[in-house]
Amino acid sequence: MKINSHISSLPGSYLFQEIASRIKTFEQENPKADILRLGIGDVTRPLSPYVAEKFASAARDMATAEGFRGYPPGEGYHFLIDAINKNDYAARGIALQDSEIFISDGAKTDAAAIQELFDKDCRIAFTDPVYPVYVDSNAMAGRLGTFENGRWCNAVYLPSTAENGFVPPLPEEKVDVLYLCYPNNPTGTVLTKAQLKPFVDWARENNALIIYDAAYKAFITDEDIPRSIYEIEGAKEVAIECCSFSKTAGFTGVRCAYTVVPHQVTGRDNSGKEVSLNALWKRRTGSKNNGVSYPVQVAAAAVYDEQGRKETEETIRYYLDNARVILDALKQGGLTVYGGVHAPYIWMKTPDNMKSWDFFDYLLRNAHVVGTPGAGFGPCGEGYFRLTAFGSRETAQQASGRILNMLSK
Amino acid sequence: MKINSHISSLPGSYLFQEIASRIKTFEQENPKADILRLGIGDVTRPLSPYVAEKFASAARDMATAEGFRGYPPGEGYHFLIDAINKNDYAARGIALQDSEIFISDGAKTDAAAIQELFDKDCRIAFTDPVYPVYVDSNAMAGRLGTFENGRWCNAVYLPSTAENGFVPPLPEEKVDVLYLCYPNNPTGTVLTKAQLKPFVDWARENNALIIYDAAYKAFITDEDIPRSIYEIEGAKEVAIECCSFSKTAGFTGVRCAYTVVPHQVTGRDNSGKEVSLNALWKRRTGSKNNGVSYPVQVAAAAVYDEQGRKETEETIRYYLDNARVILDALKQGGLTVYGGVHAPYIWMKTPDNMKSWDFFDYLLRNAHVVGTPGAGFGPCGEGYFRLTAFGSRETAQQASGRILNMLSK
Repeated sequence: MKINSHISSLPGSYLFQEIASRIKTFEQENPKADILRLGIGDVTRPLSPYVAEKFASAARDMATAEGFRGYPPGEGYHFLIDAINKNDYAARGIALQDSEIFISDGAKTDAAAIQELFDKDCRIAFTDPVYPVYVDSNAMAGRLGTFENGRWCNAVYLPSTAENGFVPPLPEEKVDVLYLCYPNNPTGTVLTKAQLKPFVDWARENNALIIYDAAYKAFITDEDIPRSIYEIEGAKEVAIECCSFSKTAGFTGVRCAYTVVPHQVTGRDNSGKEVSLNALWKRRTGSKNNGVSYPVQVAAAAVYDEQGRKETEETIRYYLDNARVILDALKQGGLTVYGGVHAPYIWMKTPDNMKSWDFFDYLLRNAHVVGTPGAGFGPCGEGYFRLTAFGSRETAQQASGRILNMLSK
Repeated sequence: MKINSHISSLPGSYLFQEIASRIKTFEQENPKADILRLGIGDVTRPLSPYVAEKFASAARDMATAEGFRGYPPGEGYHFLIDAINKNDYAARGIALQDSEIFISDGAKTDAAAIQELFDKDCRIAFTDPVYPVYVDSNAMAGRLGTFENGRWCNAVYLPSTAENGFVPPLPEEKVDVLYLCYPNNPTGTVLTKAQLKPFVDWARENNALIIYDAAYKAFITDEDIPRSIYEIEGAKEVAIECCSFSKTAGFTGVRCAYTVVPHQVTGRDNSGKEVSLNALWKRRTGSKNNGVSYPVQVAAAAVYDEQGRKETEETIRYYLDNARVILDALKQGGLTVYGGVHAPYIWMKTPDNMKSWDFFDYLLRNAHVVGTPGAGFGPCGEGYFRLTAFGSRETAQQASGRILNMLSK
């Protein structure tokens, strides 16, 4: 049988698999090296004890006649949707209907699946650098053409670099869908409301759709930076928002997320008829998935209880303090650094204009520190390097020290 | 923006959503009716206490530094893959490598996603009646053409009816992929090894792929009926197998499943190069998903421990006894019934050649019993009706009694 060549012809392997593979090789050659990992964006602090206890309790209840739950509702349990709506939206003055919120097992799952709603000929724009999932999922669907010189010929790239202050330009050509992620992965930079508004206006004027990934919104510490794109007027007409408990509440190993698809967001079908993307996503999801584990949804809802919120917010502050430790040290060492204030990611210029992957190898060999090469996120990431604040305070301090020490030699 | 019209043009709504909607209408009109549900294939018995305790314990451990787990391995935790391999395959004489087993959050997820590996022009065959997910997922990808008179014009349908003893014929035309599900949903019928072998031989001779859904294998009580397609010689060259803990261990609300993609299964890319479907699935899954909840995988592995196995097998026997109660009663009432011996599904001919949906409404109104209209699974399901054995003994007995009572009037 003939396979989907769009998957087999994807360039290289998935970024984090390549990193894992290089670490493995290094470890085999240097079995005694004490490697500090500031690479993959995985959290390391334990779950909130309150949340874990609720999770465990729901799991135990599954063995009782009263507590047992079979198939979850396809869109998610109402108790969780309601908690999300009240706390993440209503409390911030955003009016959503419960039927606009869909629970899933991960923002990556949704960010990768959302493109199934687009016509195969839709023209897609990404910021550059970019979280690879947006690009790879569209490439696998055959929407991006061929890969040449680090870019897909049918995709539109919006550079996001130090030169434009990490505020990408609006697309100049016809674009149907634009992916945005703020606080940004990988750069750790943010857009203010005033900087985000032109994108919403552009989408409204051009009948375009914005996929807004707000997975890192819990790290925002300034009221002027939007936690949701729906804080921008008119965004409910043009934007789908993906959020996650992974980074907010340490759920990378628990798996729960949600996506908002407002009823006002529409597209046109082949015959030109207006179609609600909410109805389309509901149909797609109901036909392809059987929902999210009941105890996991109980755990996610517990994040909004007073005790759960308190404990998870403490963890966020811990990571942000780590970020400050790294930022301060690198600045002190004369490096040029971005992000790390409203995000767990620090985006640094490599010293001496080293290539990203060269710096990855250099850092691993000379400081036994793992980071993520900026080039792995797109051509405009070349010459940059991502460090994450998700480790312990000790790791942040030690790694910063080792980097400074390495550079001073 | 232009949407994927293949989703918006899907006929009707998803079968079980339509059923839910008819029940809701009936309940609003008859608020006091005591409805017995033998419709949707959801389990109802509590989880094994042993399994639930392991699940809860892993959830609680997530709040400790030692027990916390972040992103799970994309293919699943090795402890679970190893338990599956040893118990479901090695113990039955099937040699698989661990790297051929992929953990997921549901067999529906995998059955719907596997088509992403096929070229858009692949020709797909389904048995008729069929579990709708195989069809809908291919239709949404635009692979099946248009829907006319209950069938997709580019799909190949293999009738599975009383006339051929529920053994569908081999495809006569060129087919690239064939979906098989045994024990079958919806008919509850099985294929013996001798009956399954010709399909494997056909696939080998025709360079075709078989997607084998074995979600109900735990209900098989006869050694001559294969629990895995890999019990058939040569199947590892041509078959992908989807399995689930949903029906085996009451995991519909827990969400865990696995798919086997042997290294020998290959296809050809655009340039004619042979490509491993295992590598393709690994790439696809690694790029689009972040794996399955750690405590859920701990729970799934506990199903293979002695105590977990004992408790889950008791539940399977309970459901099979329900099936016998329903089968015996319906036979006694003169109805023609199939399945229900190696499966939790009873497939009955509607009395007086009633249309399936008419019988659905008739049964709901006159016996307050919910089943699933055979026509919802394809044109060859017309005139049939599915009842499930997943309720309590009392429900099985009462529902059978009400049906007989209704028919005798």
